[in-house]
Amino acid sequence: MNSIGSIQSFTILDAAKRIAPFINYTPVLTSHTINRLFKAEIFLKCENFQKVGAFKARGATNAILSLPESDLGCGVATHSSGNHAQALSWAASLVNTRAFIVMPVNSSKIKVAAVKDYGGEITFCEPDLASRETTLFRILEQTGAKEIHPYNNEQIIAGQATAALELIDEIKNLDIIMAPVGGGGLLGGTSLSVHYFLPEGKVIAAEPEQANDAYLSFTNRKFIPSLNPDTIADGLRTSLGTITFPIILNHVHRIVTVSEESIVKSMRFLWERMKIMVEPSSAVPFAALMEGKIEITGKKVGIIISGGNVDLDHLPWMKNG
Amino acid sequence: MNSIGSIQSFTILDAAKRIAPFINYTPVLTSHTINRLFKAEIFLKCENFQKVGAFKARGATNAILSLPESDLGCGVATHSSGNHAQALSWAASLVNTRAFIVMPVNSSKIKVAAVKDYGGEITFCEPDLASRETTLFRILEQTGAKEIHPYNNEQIIAGQATAALELIDEIKNLDIIMAPVGGGGLLGGTSLSVHYFLPEGKVIAAEPEQANDAYLSFTNRKFIPSLNPDTIADGLRTSLGTITFPIILNHVHRIVTVSEESIVKSMRFLWERMKIMVEPSSAVPFAALMEGKIEITGKKVGIIISGGNVDLDHLPWMKNG
Repeated sequence: MNSIGSIQSFTILDAAKRIAPFINYTPVLTSHTINRLFKAEIFLKCENFQKVGAFKARGATNAILSLPESDLGCGVATHSSGNHAQALSWAASLVNTRAFIVMPVNSSKIKVAAVKDYGGEITFCEPDLASRETTLFRILEQTGAKEIHPYNNEQIIAGQATAALELIDEIKNLDIIMAPVGGGGLLGGTSLSVHYFLPEGKVIAAEPEQANDAYLSFTNRKFIPSLNPDTIADGLRTSLGTITFPIILNHVHRIVTVSEESIVKSMRFLWERMKIMVEPSSAVPFAALMEGKIEITGKKVGIIISGGNVDLDHLPWMKNG
Repeated sequence: MNSIGSIQSFTILDAAKRIAPFINYTPVLTSHTINRLFKAEIFLKCENFQKVGAFKARGATNAILSLPESDLGCGVATHSSGNHAQALSWAASLVNTRAFIVMPVNSSKIKVAAVKDYGGEITFCEPDLASRETTLFRILEQTGAKEIHPYNNEQIIAGQATAALELIDEIKNLDIIMAPVGGGGLLGGTSLSVHYFLPEGKVIAAEPEQANDAYLSFTNRKFIPSLNPDTIADGLRTSLGTITFPIILNHVHRIVTVSEESIVKSMRFLWERMKIMVEPSSAVPFAALMEGKIEITGKKVGIIISGGNVDLDHLPWMKNG
């Protein structure tokens, strides 16, 4: 039980109930073409249709709504250049509290604009971890805001677990559930939902070869940080956390890696065949299928499509991508 | 009744039953952001998720399955450079018959490849109507194939009507249903479904200003052909037909036009906010809302999103678009 910490089955069920009025119950899409291609049944849980365009809305909402009211007065804070920044800003606005977001100065204009749109208050820092952490520490001291870590937080993990919970509830008897892995919030939560609610199911994670810290940590059963991640899947560049890593070690069955080329091809394939916008990180599990890394013939496979936030002026198959 | 010809309510219901095993029952998507923006409830019937990526699969399937078996032996034929070509090729393969498609030599490579993928047999012609018709006539003579016109065909219209039928059935008490108008197959079918199954509802069509033949024909109550259509909405460049025009005259309440700029903006807005790929023609009704052409405050508005086939290498907001 130690590996799970305090995230019990009711923690996830409570999270689902808590966030239901605020988040989207996202659709599960299928494609005959894709099923025929893999001789399997594939179910895409479309978190790209989630609030703020990514599963991160689940965790952020659960974390904020789980805080005692006395903790909310001074706002919440995080450092993030990605979907968590938007999710936290949006979720803070639900309870009329402030969100302080530390972002590196080189963050994309689109992401900065999105955070501002949701009401987040941005402090820029240098684009390195030390500067991010120092700046966040200063903000926390100055404002008294509560830090909400993007993944190394049990309420965040329980929130992210609700995507798989919905999928397991809607599509019966899945053999495999796949998710991408970055910091491990989504994967950790997914693996706990499978552990509790689909005990015969297997959890297979996919990660870019060029940001394979989770693969290495999992294989060597010891934490190995993400040092020079060089992947288009910008949501998957972070290292695992002290809470997410043990959960993953205990409840994930396999982690496979995929090439940059197949991430881009898979992303484009999903756009063209499914007519949905998915971001590069979302295409990583599907890329593992395209690369033939996993044998799924005859199986029922759920895939968490993690998000759909892309810059339409810079698509990876464009010259200026 | 003359205006409706032989398309009765049971014609549409029969079509729905006939094509159900083959086509997708497409989802209806909503967005809180969009509803808030317009202070209305907006429901997108997502035919971009339809087989072959467009509503055209409905009409083509219904037309082919309605033919007596004796008519199927020599195949079916049409001239089309767009979604109907793909839809007819795909639907012909369902009943193991051949599809002869006449396409202009300057058709995009992507569309040619898609038709071939679905098994269509292409004959190229010069890019003008005379050449298209002459070539089709020759093919019909040589092969004995049955012509399936893209819109001026009652079984096609009845098939296209089933999209609105599903929408009316799923979302109760819609005030308005909107559709784009090109040749009038989708709009004619939609207006008949509203006439029979949502008699209090209004049908409002939208058309590009730069291909405003339906608007002019409707306003002047006499047929005016599409002469020099110059719009990015490539599905909406055709003239109305002798069957579709009277239906539209009698059952459509209003036609509004929109600028090219707002078509592209609306298309991008739908991609970014809804995370779905819609083609330019599909964005035309939404563009009418964005331009404030229609008062919808407090109303329930259904929009038929007609298709999602776009060339991801040439998007309209790109320099090479």
